[in-house]
Amino acid sequence: MPEYADAKPHYRINDTKNIHLLAERQSSTFDVEDFAQFMFGGSDNPFDINTRRQLSFVEVHLFFEYNLSFCLARLAITHPIHQTHLPFEYLTADEHYSLCIRKSFAAIDAVNRLNITNRKHRGWFYEIFVNYYFSFYIHTSMCIYAIENLASEEQKHTLLPLAESFQIIATYAQTELGHGTDIRRLETEAIFDKTTDSFILNTPTLTATKFWPGSMGKTVNHVLLMAQLYTPDSNHACGVQMFLVQIRDLKTHQPLPGVEVGEISTRFAHIFGDNGYLRLTNVRIPRTQMFMKLAHVDSNGNFTRQGDARLLYGTMVHERLRLINTTLIALIRAMAIAVRYSAVRFQGLNPSGKETRILDYPLQQEKLIPSLSTTYAFLIAFIKLDRYFFQLKTNDDDYFRELPQLHALSCGFKGYTLSISERIAQICRVACGGHGFLVASGLVTSRNGIDGGCSAEGDNVVLLQQTARYLLKRMQQVEENNSGSLHSSVAYLNLPLWLPPTSLKLDDYCRLFESRSQLLVKEMFGKMLESTSSSPYDAFIQNSIELVHMAKAHMETFIIRAFYDQVQNARQHVSIALVLEQLFYVYAIHTLRNTSTDFVRLKLLSADQIYELESRVLPDLYIQLRPNLVTLVDAFDFHDFELDSCLGRYDGQVYEALMERARLNPSNRHKVPPIWTSIKQGTLSKL
Amino acid sequence: MPEYADAKPHYRINDTKNIHLLAERQSSTFDVEDFAQFMFGGSDNPFDINTRRQLSFVEVHLFFEYNLSFCLARLAITHPIHQTHLPFEYLTADEHYSLCIRKSFAAIDAVNRLNITNRKHRGWFYEIFVNYYFSFYIHTSMCIYAIENLASEEQKHTLLPLAESFQIIATYAQTELGHGTDIRRLETEAIFDKTTDSFILNTPTLTATKFWPGSMGKTVNHVLLMAQLYTPDSNHACGVQMFLVQIRDLKTHQPLPGVEVGEISTRFAHIFGDNGYLRLTNVRIPRTQMFMKLAHVDSNGNFTRQGDARLLYGTMVHERLRLINTTLIALIRAMAIAVRYSAVRFQGLNPSGKETRILDYPLQQEKLIPSLSTTYAFLIAFIKLDRYFFQLKTNDDDYFRELPQLHALSCGFKGYTLSISERIAQICRVACGGHGFLVASGLVTSRNGIDGGCSAEGDNVVLLQQTARYLLKRMQQVEENNSGSLHSSVAYLNLPLWLPPTSLKLDDYCRLFESRSQLLVKEMFGKMLESTSSSPYDAFIQNSIELVHMAKAHMETFIIRAFYDQVQNARQHVSIALVLEQLFYVYAIHTLRNTSTDFVRLKLLSADQIYELESRVLPDLYIQLRPNLVTLVDAFDFHDFELDSCLGRYDGQVYEALMERARLNPSNRHKVPPIWTSIKQGTLSKL
Repeated sequence: MPEYADAKPHYRINDTKNIHLLAERQSSTFDVEDFAQFMFGGSDNPFDINTRRQLSFVEVHLFFEYNLSFCLARLAITHPIHQTHLPFEYLTADEHYSLCIRKSFAAIDAVNRLNITNRKHRGWFYEIFVNYYFSFYIHTSMCIYAIENLASEEQKHTLLPLAESFQIIATYAQTELGHGTDIRRLETEAIFDKTTDSFILNTPTLTATKFWPGSMGKTVNHVLLMAQLYTPDSNHACGVQMFLVQIRDLKTHQPLPGVEVGEISTRFAHIFGDNGYLRLTNVRIPRTQMFMKLAHVDSNGNFTRQGDARLLYGTMVHERLRLINTTLIALIRAMAIAVRYSAVRFQGLNPSGKETRILDYPLQQEKLIPSLSTTYAFLIAFIKLDRYFFQLKTNDDDYFRELPQLHALSCGFKGYTLSISERIAQICRVACGGHGFLVASGLVTSRNGIDGGCSAEGDNVVLLQQTARYLLKRMQQVEENNSGSLHSSVAYLNLPLWLPPTSLKLDDYCRLFESRSQLLVKEMFGKMLESTSSSPYDAFIQNSIELVHMAKAHMETFIIRAFYDQVQNARQHVSIALVLEQLFYVYAIHTLRNTSTDFVRLKLLSADQIYELESRVLPDLYIQLRPNLVTLVDAFDFHDFELDSCLGRYDGQVYEALMERARLNPSNRHKVPPIWTSIKQGTLSKL
Repeated sequence: MPEYADAKPHYRINDTKNIHLLAERQSSTFDVEDFAQFMFGGSDNPFDINTRRQLSFVEVHLFFEYNLSFCLARLAITHPIHQTHLPFEYLTADEHYSLCIRKSFAAIDAVNRLNITNRKHRGWFYEIFVNYYFSFYIHTSMCIYAIENLASEEQKHTLLPLAESFQIIATYAQTELGHGTDIRRLETEAIFDKTTDSFILNTPTLTATKFWPGSMGKTVNHVLLMAQLYTPDSNHACGVQMFLVQIRDLKTHQPLPGVEVGEISTRFAHIFGDNGYLRLTNVRIPRTQMFMKLAHVDSNGNFTRQGDARLLYGTMVHERLRLINTTLIALIRAMAIAVRYSAVRFQGLNPSGKETRILDYPLQQEKLIPSLSTTYAFLIAFIKLDRYFFQLKTNDDDYFRELPQLHALSCGFKGYTLSISERIAQICRVACGGHGFLVASGLVTSRNGIDGGCSAEGDNVVLLQQTARYLLKRMQQVEENNSGSLHSSVAYLNLPLWLPPTSLKLDDYCRLFESRSQLLVKEMFGKMLESTSSSPYDAFIQNSIELVHMAKAHMETFIIRAFYDQVQNARQHVSIALVLEQLFYVYAIHTLRNTSTDFVRLKLLSADQIYELESRVLPDLYIQLRPNLVTLVDAFDFHDFELDSCLGRYDGQVYEALMERARLNPSNRHKVPPIWTSIKQGTLSKL
């Protein structure tokens, strides 16, 4: 890694062009860079911003094969290749695919020339360079890891160099058309043939077709095939094993005999990589192509398990953490975009005839501040979890002792945070109104026809305020004893009703969530014991809804504790500790109000207390956090190149960017679309 | 409308090919057709299935301009034009646009030849024919309505025939780059010029650019322009008025002088219609092109308001109801797809070695049954609201008396149901796992990168069950007083905690929701009175979060009452009443548990009661509803053509459909993608 690397923040406050955004940044109560370093600095931090900054901008003298010339370029963000194409949303599927392959090879080329040896750093460089569309992501992030952990020493010795140098490009082929979650039911077969000392591979049914594996359709030349092993005769099942299978010729990239491979049908928009399908008909591979670290087949077809099967869990944990990491980056992108846009967008007249910045509306704050607090909670807890994982990996004894917890936490963290992250991304889209639907907003690939309706013809909460106004007027009628003329739908406003009371005092949030989790787990444990189901399996299925709820509560407990610790860590940085504490309170209150039944039913809080927290404490916290919202997302330290958003750009020139992007739309190249020329000429039939 | 129209259901049970789906249909406790007729029959029903069936299949002898020949065709679904293209997701933006225009003209052509005179029926025919991509939807649904209600009699007399015959094709141009929600701040100007008796139109700033109007970019030749009227001199503001402005030549379709028009940047995938931008520079239109029913400008530039301004509200209500209607159709499509797929998808081994149908998992039922119940609640309440609207329109006195309620209900209904509908569509996507991401699932344009992660590497709830298992094991440790070795994240399981009690009995759900709404409205009314804010505006803004909550509660009250009435209406059909009642209970309980703090705080229910309802009553209801889930979505009576889903097809041949669709992917036409040929030939640079 070159010494002269530049690790400064991507922007300085005075890069801001929009005066409103500038005011936000100037009014912040803490220093963004100090905060960013505290949260995301350090080489053991999964977000390690200093290294990321270096990777984005390292200068180097290098040779570009794509234009056959020498030049001095700033990588990865300013590489000239990025100037060779329209915005992604304007490319066809094939154009987009070709571009990503080109960029991916250029990135590999650069990494080699820059001699970036740290694997994690290489991965980051690839991702940044190719705008998170690196074509060989699964190969570099999962497959190489799998070879290291599941292949025998001899296999590693031969395979790793080939994989590291991209002569072998592989993907992980597990999911089938008929089965994904339950790998025990995979139908792809590997039958050992003693006479030729090889395996015969088949996808014997339609549903056995490998379906979904990333970059399998058009990109890879090998797959790590998960298949049912049968040896020596097909009645002797040895369970699912992993096989390295070449599917394309290394020279011509042609699919090999017996291999039917292609891309599946379109996901979302077409820009979601290259998911493939694969059918195998009597494809033969040598016996040595089965990964033999945890299982072994000898030349007589004798099957033995060996090594520590828990290594498989380790691999899964690793992949799960990487997925969470990627998701969190998508999440903070959405937050950065929505908050910045809300600071430059004005809408609605106040009585003095002035327009209001939408970030100043409590309803907008109710959307964004709990979301931002939750985002920070997830980041903090993930950083803790990720560090914990890598620490453990340095000592096998610790590792295997802690593996069950690690597995449970990574499962729960993935399951709990991804659903909520999806929700937050949707909230960010709604918070950006109509412009949030544009792919150019950077939010979009998250959106759909129905939620389009949420902003069309009036934002939902704007319309609901109409209803609110109406109800207040009707209530006034009732108060004025003028309720004879009440409309039918509000007649109930004047009917008699029925009522009763309680109250408690709030202590420490961590203890509160811990107590609640404890009670839920005790409760479910009891239910499982008392269960009259015929088997533990049935009992589990029967109680699964509440069990999942219990698991979520556990994850909330884990996250809130991690957040609490981080607030403590910040004590020596007063301004940072203060804002983190405010975020902590918002996350805690927002989270408990969403499952308030638990807390009330378990007598930990009264409904009145929760109402007090929600209706008094939260709004006060919003006011306290208000001056720091923009800098809290600036701290994610995105370069506009990474954010790729007209709404979220650092300088705040939102409308100029939207207009420019619209004019770039290739559909506008004809003043009269060809179809209309045909219509006007009455030649429609010729189309 | 031809007499011999066929109004039978699209399918009969024995059209089912998948045996599991067949079993579901055979086990239903009610007759689908009876149910469908009860829910959606009748010409005053907004879904009027009988007419829709006729429109889908009417036979007629007609002339197709697109192939210049005579033939006997069955419209709209079986029209030969539908055989002329790949699935939509494989078309480029321009191909998709041209196809929709072609189909739209073919649909208009057919409507004329079929002599379908009822406007509502014509609209349905267009939508069905063009797979809900009818290119002139805004023209036929909104603009013609606006001409009728906002143009003067003379204007109507000239404009209506031109609009009805598609010589004038218009859209509604309100939203600007800088303003949407708050139309008072629109910047587009219409300045009256006395000397030429005309208006001079300008978009004087960047943010004044008209941005988003549907079909404006490439399709329409006129716009209904919302602009600030100034007369006689530009200091005399007359507020926002509506002007009919021609933007393209009727013969050549060329933009007129002073008009810059084009498509904005990509929304979602590119298949979302033709949203446009429009900039006007000194465009002149005659004075008579301003809509003069509610406002008037004479040749001296004197401005007067006239007529009943409340007509504007009526137009907005009408458009809002149509939007809700469209959204509900998207919602029931998603439900139909998710439920049918869940009945044919098997995953997970039980101890007896059998696989489980995913619809039999309580966690899948927890996803789909509350969603389906909510969907029916929305349908029922919307049918009531829509009927109410059309009844009122027959009598001006009733209409204007009820308009405030109509306005409030339509605002609230749109605001409340669309957010939840988006959520349900997402739940349906998650319920279909990975295959739910395919555009071919019919669910997709609803999905994004983050929620992609919700199913990747294990469904969230499947993973959470891992955590649950782990927690049970740890709890066992505690019970066995073996807690010394507890992992840190579960240490709290063995710590002391703190507790207290209440209880009440549930009466009638309608009264319960009514009482809660009443209390909330009273409470907010009191808060507004006591407010110390400087102005009512500030008080409203300050309390807006709770006011919106109050409005939502009101809508829930409205919906639950409508649902209750429908259950009563069904009393004479025992089997129908039974299933509706079950759906009613699920909706009521699911809805109250989501805002349980209200009910507990207001002493209407205890947390224990809510827990009882959620943990005991709901699961029982799931079991009762289980045999009818498939037929409850069959009752929506979609033809596969309309559903356009590999997962939701009536016959259940899901995997065959997915594989066929994948093989159709045009990206598979090359066995070796061109980019790889270049790579292998070392000619990457030439790309």
